[in-house]
Amino acid sequence: MSRDVDRVVDAVARKVKLRLVSELRNTPCRAGKEECTGEGLCAVRRPDDAKAIQRAGGGRIGASPGIGAVRQDLAQYIDHTLLKPEAAHDDLVKICDEARQFGFASVCVNSANVRFCKDRLKGTGVMTVAVVGFPLGAMTSHAKAFETKQAIRDGADEIDMVINLGALKSRDLVTVFDDIAAVVNAARRVPVKVIIEAGALSDEEKIIACSLSKAAHAAFVKTSTGFGPGGATLDDVRLMRSVVGADTGVKASGGVRNAEAADAMVAAGATRIGASASVAIVKGETSKSSY
Amino acid sequence: MSRDVDRVVDAVARKVKLRLVSELRNTPCRAGKEECTGEGLCAVRRPDDAKAIQRAGGGRIGASPGIGAVRQDLAQYIDHTLLKPEAAHDDLVKICDEARQFGFASVCVNSANVRFCKDRLKGTGVMTVAVVGFPLGAMTSHAKAFETKQAIRDGADEIDMVINLGALKSRDLVTVFDDIAAVVNAARRVPVKVIIEAGALSDEEKIIACSLSKAAHAAFVKTSTGFGPGGATLDDVRLMRSVVGADTGVKASGGVRNAEAADAMVAAGATRIGASASVAIVKGETSKSSY
Repeated sequence: MSRDVDRVVDAVARKVKLRLVSELRNTPCRAGKEECTGEGLCAVRRPDDAKAIQRAGGGRIGASPGIGAVRQDLAQYIDHTLLKPEAAHDDLVKICDEARQFGFASVCVNSANVRFCKDRLKGTGVMTVAVVGFPLGAMTSHAKAFETKQAIRDGADEIDMVINLGALKSRDLVTVFDDIAAVVNAARRVPVKVIIEAGALSDEEKIIACSLSKAAHAAFVKTSTGFGPGGATLDDVRLMRSVVGADTGVKASGGVRNAEAADAMVAAGATRIGASASVAIVKGETSKSSY
Repeated sequence: MSRDVDRVVDAVARKVKLRLVSELRNTPCRAGKEECTGEGLCAVRRPDDAKAIQRAGGGRIGASPGIGAVRQDLAQYIDHTLLKPEAAHDDLVKICDEARQFGFASVCVNSANVRFCKDRLKGTGVMTVAVVGFPLGAMTSHAKAFETKQAIRDGADEIDMVINLGALKSRDLVTVFDDIAAVVNAARRVPVKVIIEAGALSDEEKIIACSLSKAAHAAFVKTSTGFGPGGATLDDVRLMRSVVGADTGVKASGGVRNAEAADAMVAAGATRIGASASVAIVKGETSKSSY
């Protein structure tokens, strides 16, 4: 088993590296001085680049004409997120009502708050997303699977789980894979997003984590918890998209504070955005929030 | 039930406030300029003050004559702690071996690492402590109880759980109490420490959290996760000791980086210290670690 996983990972890593090198050669930055951030953000404002990224697995691009339309279009990408442990009932009511008002994809909350939000969101079409093993990912797979099942019983429509980072750092890839698979199996038909905490990983580890997530039938890979080192970066979203291909989602989370950043993430391959600054994003403002 | 809990909390809060006011009046700071930090640290270097604190519920004081003896004496108070999620096997081996070498009370690790540490510590007399619902405390009580049971099956000798901070902030005290009780019941005879995350709480909330922990038969109350706002303070340790009385432990965790700080915590009423800087503490050095 261990050797099988190693072989898969090696093959995926080689393939991804080749694809990245080829993409970098074929899509040089052509943006003007003002827009160019040196991070490939230019793609957002340049339809040709955006289309190229979309062809390479970028998912839906929200760049329809007119700022208002862009903002409204962005809302459907956003998991409106409240994960601070001291969040009180009033805070939960607020995010649920905002999610309904602005048409966000979901609210994303700690698993203890799923039932409360599910009740509040009844009949709105807004999903309730539960985080599991959050934010350290350092509980056993059995405990993560149990938390998953209970969150779904309480009404969770999607599960955002954190991988076992210590096992990944120890190159115990069987444990990393089994841990993800335990949650995916426990979730049955409920989609699972796998948080790899990219800011704590080397590029090679990111590739391994994404390929193991895909092998375990995760619905999405997700950049960050918002509690670890660093948030979503365009480079990470691009890398993760390259690894998982077009049929798996990529969620950019952590540090997305305005519409421009959200657009850039989508152009880089994100199909979901995790943010607490969601209202600022769709209103065209910039939040000081850290998630 | 809700009214019963409110009544208990009110009564305890009144009693504690009275006791604190009386203590402050009877024990003015008498330290010299150099030693006086304005935080009551003077008690460490002044036997009379230390004895007064001990009488008020301070537990064991490690201030035996000679620095060497103090350090050795401190080791038995320390839960040698490694909770960062990316901790790899080598890191776990290191803390287990250090715990054996220096005679720490335990190693304190994430629940996924309990079995590994328990195996490594076999025959050493060093306990394995598992954190549960860590560090946000925002999963359901059922999930915390499940994680507790599994950690004990894997060999945990003690459980350090995090309270439901959101419920406390919402004044949903029945949920806070039931959550602690669920873990204490799941743990059976295994002692449970209740992390109140004091840095996120008002004094009144700290008093409530401690009194509910005591009512739920927790073995210890514990100041901080090390991942939240602020670590252990002498004021918090004193307050928590005042609330729980002499027959419940107080664990000071977060930011204890040298022997002087550890001694001060013990003098203020701590009967256990949580630290990653444990080796520096017993060697008389100062660590730059954040836990």
